[in-house]
This record gives sequence, C-alpha cells and structure tokens, in this order.
Amino acid sequence: MPWETSLVLPDGDQPAWLRLADAVVAEVRRGRLRPGDALPGTRRVAEQLGLHRNTVLRAWSELAGQGWITASQGGATRIAELPERPRPVGTPARGVPFALEVPPDEPPPWPTGTLTLAGGRPELRHLPTAELARAWRGAVRRTRGQILAYGDPEGHPRLREALRRMLATERGLVAEAPLVTRGAQQALYLLAHALFRPGDKVAVEAYGYPPAWAAFRSAGAELLGVEVDDQGLVTEHLEILARQGLRALYCTPHHQYPTMVTLPAARRLEVLRLASRYGFAIIEDDYDNEFHFRGRPVHPLASLDRSGTVAYVGTLSKVLAPGLRVGFLAAAPPVLRAVARLRRIVDRQGDTATESALAELIDDGTVPRHLRRMRRLYATRQARFASALHERLGDVLSWTLPAGGLSLWVESRVDVEQWSRTAASLGLGFETASRFRLDHEARPYFRAGFAALDDEEVRTALERLCTARPDALR
Amino acid sequence: MPWETSLVLPDGDQPAWLRLADAVVAEVRRGRLRPGDALPGTRRVAEQLGLHRNTVLRAWSELAGQGWITASQGGATRIAELPERPRPVGTPARGVPFALEVPPDEPPPWPTGTLTLAGGRPELRHLPTAELARAWRGAVRRTRGQILAYGDPEGHPRLREALRRMLATERGLVAEAPLVTRGAQQALYLLAHALFRPGDKVAVEAYGYPPAWAAFRSAGAELLGVEVDDQGLVTEHLEILARQGLRALYCTPHHQYPTMVTLPAARRLEVLRLASRYGFAIIEDDYDNEFHFRGRPVHPLASLDRSGTVAYVGTLSKVLAPGLRVGFLAAAPPVLRAVARLRRIVDRQGDTATESALAELIDDGTVPRHLRRMRRLYATRQARFASALHERLGDVLSWTLPAGGLSLWVESRVDVEQWSRTAASLGLGFETASRFRLDHEARPYFRAGFAALDDEEVRTALERLCTARPDALR
Repeated sequence: MPWETSLVLPDGDQPAWLRLADAVVAEVRRGRLRPGDALPGTRRVAEQLGLHRNTVLRAWSELAGQGWITASQGGATRIAELPERPRPVGTPARGVPFALEVPPDEPPPWPTGTLTLAGGRPELRHLPTAELARAWRGAVRRTRGQILAYGDPEGHPRLREALRRMLATERGLVAEAPLVTRGAQQALYLLAHALFRPGDKVAVEAYGYPPAWAAFRSAGAELLGVEVDDQGLVTEHLEILARQGLRALYCTPHHQYPTMVTLPAARRLEVLRLASRYGFAIIEDDYDNEFHFRGRPVHPLASLDRSGTVAYVGTLSKVLAPGLRVGFLAAAPPVLRAVARLRRIVDRQGDTATESALAELIDDGTVPRHLRRMRRLYATRQARFASALHERLGDVLSWTLPAGGLSLWVESRVDVEQWSRTAASLGLGFETASRFRLDHEARPYFRAGFAALDDEEVRTALERLCTARPDALR
Repeated sequence: MPWETSLVLPDGDQPAWLRLADAVVAEVRRGRLRPGDALPGTRRVAEQLGLHRNTVLRAWSELAGQGWITASQGGATRIAELPERPRPVGTPARGVPFALEVPPDEPPPWPTGTLTLAGGRPELRHLPTAELARAWRGAVRRTRGQILAYGDPEGHPRLREALRRMLATERGLVAEAPLVTRGAQQALYLLAHALFRPGDKVAVEAYGYPPAWAAFRSAGAELLGVEVDDQGLVTEHLEILARQGLRALYCTPHHQYPTMVTLPAARRLEVLRLASRYGFAIIEDDYDNEFHFRGRPVHPLASLDRSGTVAYVGTLSKVLAPGLRVGFLAAAPPVLRAVARLRRIVDRQGDTATESALAELIDDGTVPRHLRRMRRLYATRQARFASALHERLGDVLSWTLPAGGLSLWVESRVDVEQWSRTAASLGLGFETASRFRLDHEARPYFRAGFAALDDEEVRTALERLCTARPDALR
C-alpha cells in the first residue's frame, strides 16, 4: 500500500488530528488514494506516525463527517465515492453556488463507436480538407502571422461580408453583415444573455432543440411550449401564450426541429403579426437552410421582417463541419452591437485565420461547389433511405417525406422507447420523441438521420433496426 | 401633436377599448409616442375617434394597468418611463434590455495600423505555421473528417493529456487533465458563472486585467481591489477584505498583471493560508508562465495547493498565438465537471482538429522548440529594449527590470496621459496606468510591451516616444 509509506504528517500549528485529515485529503486529491481504497487500521496509522490512537480516530471521524471516507460492510474504512454534486473550489464538503442553472450532463444514450441515426450529422468524408488547410496557411502567411493576433470579436470582416452576400442573394435577407459566432450554439447563448432578464417568458416549440433551451434557461428564461402539428408551430397556441406576455419566440420555421415540416406562408405571416402585436422578439434558427431538396426554397421569417423583430441564426456546421465551430447571427444593429460586447467577455473572439480561410473558400467557389455536391448527395440518400426503410419496416413505421433536412421524423406503431434501448444494445443509436419534448413526455416517434451514412452503413443500420423491433422479439 | 393626427382606430372584432389601447401601444413601440409625452384629454380622443368617452377611459385604465401610461401630478396622463419593460428586438431607435451588465465597448485608443507598445502581444512572425497547417490537415485526414464532427466539450483528450504532463513536469502541478477553453478569457468567464452568485464579493488586484473583471461582473460579482506594491498583492489588505467575506480572489502571482512583479514565497503561502482560513476560492491566472528569463521558475500557487482551493488558468496565446484561441483550466474535478457543463451551453466545444494538431506539435517537440526559441528572443528583446529606453529617456523614465514577462512597467516623471495622447497622434500607442486600475485613477506609470517589436520597430517607437514627451513640446 504505497499510501502508508508515503503518508507524512505535515508540520504546522494546527492540531495533529486536523493535519492528519488534511494529509489524507491531499493523498486523495493527488490520486494516490482512490475511491474504494481501504485505509489501514487506526492502530497501524497511530504507530506509523507516532500518534495517540485517539488522534487518528478523531481525524477519521472528521474525514467521515466531510464525506471523504466511509466505514464499509467488512468493517474496513474506505475512501468514499465522491458524489457527483459539484463542490466549491475551496471547501470540498459544500456545494458550488451556481449563478446559473447547470443542467445534468447529457451523454448520448449509446457508447462511442455506435452506428447512429442521430439526426443532423453531415457527411464529413467529402470535406475539401486540402483546400481548407491550404487556405488557412495562406491566410497566416500573407499576414506574416498577424491574422493570429488579437482580432475583431464580431468576426473576420471578409467572412462577414461573404455571409452577408449569401444571405441577401440566396435567402432574400437584407441586413448588416452578420456577426460570426462559435456555431449556432454561441449565437443562441449570446442572444439569450443580451435579451432576456431572469423570469422572462420565452416560447419555444414543444418539440424542439434542447441545447437552445439550456442556453435560454442559463439566462433565467422561463420556457413555455408552443404545440407543433403537421404544419409546424400552432399560431393560435402561440397567441394564447403571447397574451401572458412573451419576451421572445424561438422557432425553426424552415425545417422544424425535429419534425422537419416547413411552416406555411400563412403561419409565417401570423407569427410576425403576433410578434409586433404583442411586442416579443423572434429568434429564428435556420440551422440547415441549405438542404432543401424539393420545391422553391422558402425564405426565412427574417426576410419578411421590416421592423427588426427577428434575430436570425445560421451555421456552417451542416454545410461544412460542426468542428469548425462557425455560426452566425443577423439582427438589428443594436442587437449585433450588444451581442458583440457580450462576446468579447465570453471568449473574446473567434478563430480569425479559420474565418479568413472560410471566406476565401466561399469567394473562390469551393464552398458553394461542396454545398451543391452535398445537396445532391443528401437528396439521393434521403430517397434511398426512405425507400429502404419503407421496404424493411413499412408495416410499423410511417412518415411524411420532408422537403428537406438531414433526417426523417418517423412514427412507429410499436414502442419506440423499448426499440431504441434494444437497438442501442445491438450497436445502433437513435433518438426518440421524448428527448425532443419540452415536457419530456413519450410520443410514438423517433428521429432518423440519414445524411452521414453511406449505403453500406444504411444496410447495417436497418439490419439492427429490424432485429431490435419489439414485436420481432416476442 | 403628431400622435393625434396619426392615431387610427384599427378595425377588428375586438372591443373598441382594446383596439384603442393596442393602437397607443403601437405608437409607443414605433417611437412616435415617447416616455413623458402627454396624452390628449379623454374627451378630445373620444370626439376625434367618434367613441363614447367611457370607451376611452376603459382603454386608458387598461394601459395604466399594464404600466404604459401614468397620471402625472399636473393631472395630465403621460406615457410612462419604461426602463424595466422588455422592448422588442430591433427597434433600433431604442436601447436593448440586458440580462447582464454589458460594459461600454473599449476600442483601443489608437487607430488600427498604429505601432503599439500594447503589452503582452507575442511575436507572430516566427510561428511554425507550415507545421500547424500540416498537423491540422493530418488530423482531419487520419480521421476521414470525423475529427470535425461534434466532439468533447472538455477538449481533445490528447491535448488535455499533453497539457497535464506539461503542468506536472514544468510547473509542479499535479492535477486531473485540464479543460481546454477558448483562450484564458473563456476559462475566466466559465469559472465566474460556475462559482459566483450575484452579489458575491470577489477580490482582484487593484492594478489588474479588465477583461477578467468584465467576466466576473457578468456573473454578478462585486469587485474589491487589493492594493499592489512592489512585491505584488498586499496580503494584509487581502485579509481585511477577506474578513468581509470573499467568494474568491483573482490574482496573477507569477508576473503580476500589469506591474510584472513576482509574488514572493512568503506572500504566496499567506494567500493560501487566508483562502483556507476564510474559505474563499483562488483563481490563479498564469497567462505567461513560460516567459521567465532570470532565476528559478516559480511554481504556481496551484502547485502548493493541497485542498483544491485554486483554479488555475493558463493559455497558449502567448506561447503560440492569441488567434488560435486555446487556453486551459486546471482545478478540482467537481469544478472541471461544472465548468464543462456550462461550456456545452455557451459554445458546445472547441476546435477539435486544431486541438489535436496542437497536441501533436507539443508531443513531437515542435511547440517546445518554438517556446525555447521565443524565450531566448524575448529575453534579448527585453534587455535591448530596456537599455535603449534608458539611453533615450532615462532622465524621465525608470523601472525595475522584471524577471520575466513580455512588457515593462514604467514610471514616468512627466504626465503620462498627455504623453500617450500625443504619441497616439504620432502613430505610437501605449497604455497608461489608469487603464489597469480598478478605480480608473491616474497613476504615473505606463505599460511598455516589447515582445512583438523587432529592432527597427523599437527604434521607430522610441523616436515617436521622444518626440511626444510632454516636456519636449514646450
């Protein structure tokens, strides 16, 4: 037991029992004593350190009181399993007071390496990585490294301008150059902290995007769920909530997350009318605008907005890759200024070199080319996946093929919760409706993301899905 | 009164009093009616719109109930001041309500392109950019792009391990693998929001780092300044503040920011004693540990800490480049877990590919080599800059040559504020003491950063400094 030999009673003016207790805590912190390790008997410790046994007993009871050690069944005293509850840096026995709500960690329900139908993951194997690396290095060289100096919290001007042009030409959104953020998540977080006061009521789609909810709650917002039907959010329900006084509405009109329906024009106009009537802001999350396969592309709410009510959030996570962490925010100038100031406090700035490289690849056509290629690929994959799914499981599964998006929203006539648990045990992961419900209630749906899977992977996924179907297990 | 002429009673199936109230609110939102504006008498409104006066009175009482209007002393009814009431995004004529304090933007006091002595800027012209770009592309290729998928909010495991080893071997800091953050700024922001409650008292060095203060204030902390003398923070003063009950101390013991003095061992131990005596956390910012030129490197407070009191923040912004946005946080496991959860909400994760590339360049010796080279370069530049400064301006300027750091803290016998204004007009920027004081008071010092300037740039800088000296202008 290395610990015994290593334990030394530190000098000090504090009583021996306290110094001994501290020494044990120090060993635990150094990792030399781990949860479950047995401590030697108090007699041996007393002999070893030349202390009176009562001193050791008192130290042990102090440690037990602080929760560092526990008397186990066998009678041996062991280092305790340290609880999950965060503790203050300084006093390990008390809870950390949080200025904002820290939600429980949400690990994916399946081990890493699992084949998953987790929605929204783009295909990363066709990324123009050589061009990205070259553009990155070029940007650094041209500036003799100066592009890696402290930079503009609003983002690299060239990328902002490239995004502004893209929004104007492809989405009919005429606005000041957007702010570049670390993915859509940071845009949502900054907006929440710039616009919400603790206690503000914020409406979100009852089927929706939990990471956005977490960001809003971290700013003290109280979330109210707006029901979603087969056309998207139900505006009559929104008005009922609006009468209670809303600070904002968060919505995904283009491909409703996670149900993928596109909000019809009439409801779009109604949402804008309600916003101006009841004076709430709209946070429009257009996370995968680019991947609309059928019908005219639908312009965002922000393109219809004349009063600056809409803050528009987009991302390159789907077009290119989540790991590049590039999103953006288009909004009224005062909102952009406020968000930029917050951003300076939160993490100061983005990766200027990466931003500059992306701007170059947008301007020279590399990104648009990649985008067109991916759109064709995803359209094909959607069709193939849907027909394979229908062929194999059409008897229990049904869905409406959405006009776009990287996943299907599938209704099941057999228990989806049980199905997903069994599938996970067979190495296939998918997310059921309850994960996307503000009220966490179970619903007979699951999300099937197909974009990141090639034909072979789809075959494997469907195999496992068939093997795992609850009614096949009987 | 434009309002009278502009007011129209909108059609609708709602009762007239409600439509009238809505119309008034709309006018306020459009900014045509402003807080303090008097409304015309109810009789005139009734006549003007052809309504019964009771209808107008009911609308007014509805508006008063909602807090839109108030009956003022004179008997006149006026639009209320609406400080607390949330306003819609994007009515650009108005301010936006903030859930947290947004400090005024602080543009550097000089135009871009100005030659500056702004402290702490590293030399970026020697960066191993080819190796960086190659390592980045290699990481993406090896993983067939998967490294650019959604990743671990705690940072790339290989970089975390490389940093853990570096801290253990070079800084005597035995801890769990640190969390990778977006520069030190994000580590400070996340710590503040994980540890502080609104109203918590946090001690900071009276000469210090304003971006850290902004992060702490954004979490609602009340900042108290600990005086700093020629040995660093004054522990007697810290104890006086500690008696009032401190949540935390933020300090820079290695190279005090901005005065550059190294805190002596006795004070280090005293700081730790006070922390455990009064139960406050220590946030140690070791932003340029690597650049200590003379004497034994001093181990951080965190290396002496056995109780988990210290949260230790470091960065690669000086070793490599700020634009890479890589910092790290070493702390007690529960603090790391809490911060990681917040981080997922704030911006989800870092640049996994960049993090992996940096890990590779640390492991293969590229970064250590660059570091040794830069340390030699900065040591030389410090000596040359100091002697040149003494030669040209020794009659009015004096300083103690610090054992390390990328800038000097210079005392001036002539007015530094006037000096810096004149210098700025000549194209030379430097920051005076007031910029670093918690109390913003003017002091006869300025910060002179030399690290990013080659011999030629130093010559130019000193030229302008001499031309701008106030006593030379008479």
